[in-house]
Amino acid sequence: MNPKKPDKILLAHGGGGQLSDQLIRKHILTRFANNTLAELTDSAKLNLDSKSICFTTDSYVVKPLFFPGGDIGKLAVCGTINDLAVSGAKPVALSLALIIEEGLAFDVLEKILDSIAATAKENNVAIVTGDTKTVEAGAADQIFINTAGIGVRLDGVELGFGNIKAGDKIIINGTIADHGMTIMSLRQDIGFQSQLKSDCAALADLTCKLLTETNGIKFMRDPTRGGLAATLNEIALQTSFDIRINDADIPINPTVQAAADALGFDVLNIANEGKFVAVVAPEIADDCVNICRRHPLGQQAAIIGEIVKTDDAPVVETTTRIGGRRIVQMPYGRELPRIC
Amino acid sequence: MNPKKPDKILLAHGGGGQLSDQLIRKHILTRFANNTLAELTDSAKLNLDSKSICFTTDSYVVKPLFFPGGDIGKLAVCGTINDLAVSGAKPVALSLALIIEEGLAFDVLEKILDSIAATAKENNVAIVTGDTKTVEAGAADQIFINTAGIGVRLDGVELGFGNIKAGDKIIINGTIADHGMTIMSLRQDIGFQSQLKSDCAALADLTCKLLTETNGIKFMRDPTRGGLAATLNEIALQTSFDIRINDADIPINPTVQAAADALGFDVLNIANEGKFVAVVAPEIADDCVNICRRHPLGQQAAIIGEIVKTDDAPVVETTTRIGGRRIVQMPYGRELPRIC
Repeated sequence: MNPKKPDKILLAHGGGGQLSDQLIRKHILTRFANNTLAELTDSAKLNLDSKSICFTTDSYVVKPLFFPGGDIGKLAVCGTINDLAVSGAKPVALSLALIIEEGLAFDVLEKILDSIAATAKENNVAIVTGDTKTVEAGAADQIFINTAGIGVRLDGVELGFGNIKAGDKIIINGTIADHGMTIMSLRQDIGFQSQLKSDCAALADLTCKLLTETNGIKFMRDPTRGGLAATLNEIALQTSFDIRINDADIPINPTVQAAADALGFDVLNIANEGKFVAVVAPEIADDCVNICRRHPLGQQAAIIGEIVKTDDAPVVETTTRIGGRRIVQMPYGRELPRIC
Repeated sequence: MNPKKPDKILLAHGGGGQLSDQLIRKHILTRFANNTLAELTDSAKLNLDSKSICFTTDSYVVKPLFFPGGDIGKLAVCGTINDLAVSGAKPVALSLALIIEEGLAFDVLEKILDSIAATAKENNVAIVTGDTKTVEAGAADQIFINTAGIGVRLDGVELGFGNIKAGDKIIINGTIADHGMTIMSLRQDIGFQSQLKSDCAALADLTCKLLTETNGIKFMRDPTRGGLAATLNEIALQTSFDIRINDADIPINPTVQAAADALGFDVLNIANEGKFVAVVAPEIADDCVNICRRHPLGQQAAIIGEIVKTDDAPVVETTTRIGGRRIVQMPYGRELPRIC
């Protein structure tokens, strides 16, 4: 069967009738073939390996839709996988909800759906349920995607702020700010573009390996919006410990640093989409870095700082490359709209 | 604490920094207080009563945001509960993801959040995880909401198209087309408005009662977008049985019928947001109707038709009030954009 493919998305594609049915059966189901989804009932029936699960959601509104290293579809799968991964879970199933602006080119939608399907397959998660809405031209910007995810918690893994102690080390699995600077450089159309590439990647394979092969990982988070600065400030706030990091220890691609300098951004505030921060017991810190370095997504992993006791209001402090010290503040949040 | 409340949503409210943090802590968490959500980790940790679950998602883009009988917030909770309910599950947890247009009045957001909180509480489901994105003015229309939901499957309940047999009866729990005609009348500004009210309601209490007190419910679906016509056509298509209904048996509010006639709509195509269609064994049909009628959401429940064997391509056929017969087609889908 070679169904006639419309050029553009029409409002009727979201109306719940014939055109919705065609869109779903011929263009969506064919890409995400699995028995659960194929039933087309109002929800997916799942038989999980455990009653102890993680559940998360994120909407994706990134602009532009396509960028070096990824696109909104890849991001929508990786981002939700990563939220499960850093919670100590093995991702098993995702939902996929599309809000599409009338007039979106069908080719663009198909490219995004292909990317979603490929990323889900690579990471062994199934798209098991979904929804498609259309809105009139001008009521959305091309396409917004929401994914929610379910993961099964790894046995014996209890990550949380409450585990963190003074002396714990802070690890990151590679260079920072790649995603955010790629997007911003595209938008600002600066000359660095061609050398920048988003780090968009799904981290569950690496985090599951770390959590099963070591004993002493306290907490993990993926430093997306607000970057490393927001993640570290959140840890300080929730634990009442100071955090000391060292600029020289933080892996960064020189082109990313140059782009940030040119545009006036602090790289610590810039979003990552394939990175996690882990707080670990000091005695396993080197092991963790070594495990990361043997994995494609952790080759530039490093210990970047530590948790320090304080009697004052907790702060995040970094030692600069010239030996000074500065407070790393929680970013205000205006720098980077629609980064993910 | 009486935090200073901004007048309008700013882009920075979605930036992952200070303003995001304020929005989430002071305006969102306070409304959905529960221990799981309060942890503010990347995903919610849940301990379910069963490994056998249902998982569903829907985005809500209804326009206008507020209407007689509900609002986008109530709809976002009820709609996702209903998808779990008609799948034979008891809803337990929802995610909540907001995409907010820069400039949305804070009062409007708070009114919606209040409605979400109240509806979730009434229905004993917890909002356990969430996400907030902002987009620039003109890139969305006020607010879009996605909820995903997890429900625990009721023991021994296996609903599905495959259970349906010739002779089974079709039941609906009340009047049709109330939601869709309410929204359309508001948009068209016709005079019927004041007497129309959406049926927006969460059905899980009633469906769980039906499924535990009877034995012989084969399949359920909530006839939302595309209305009763789309649901019945889907059943015919998936089972290869004909469906015969009777216009005179279908409960309808006379004002809704009048509004549909005035605007030129077929009420069978119009969305419902507090209705389910159940296909049941003939011997329990009266019991089902009686159980419904004792429940606030089923007082006008009725048997509206039956499943009939056919050797031809399956169709949905209705007997009109003047005794004629007509085929009820799958609606094309263009009639009612942004109805939910």
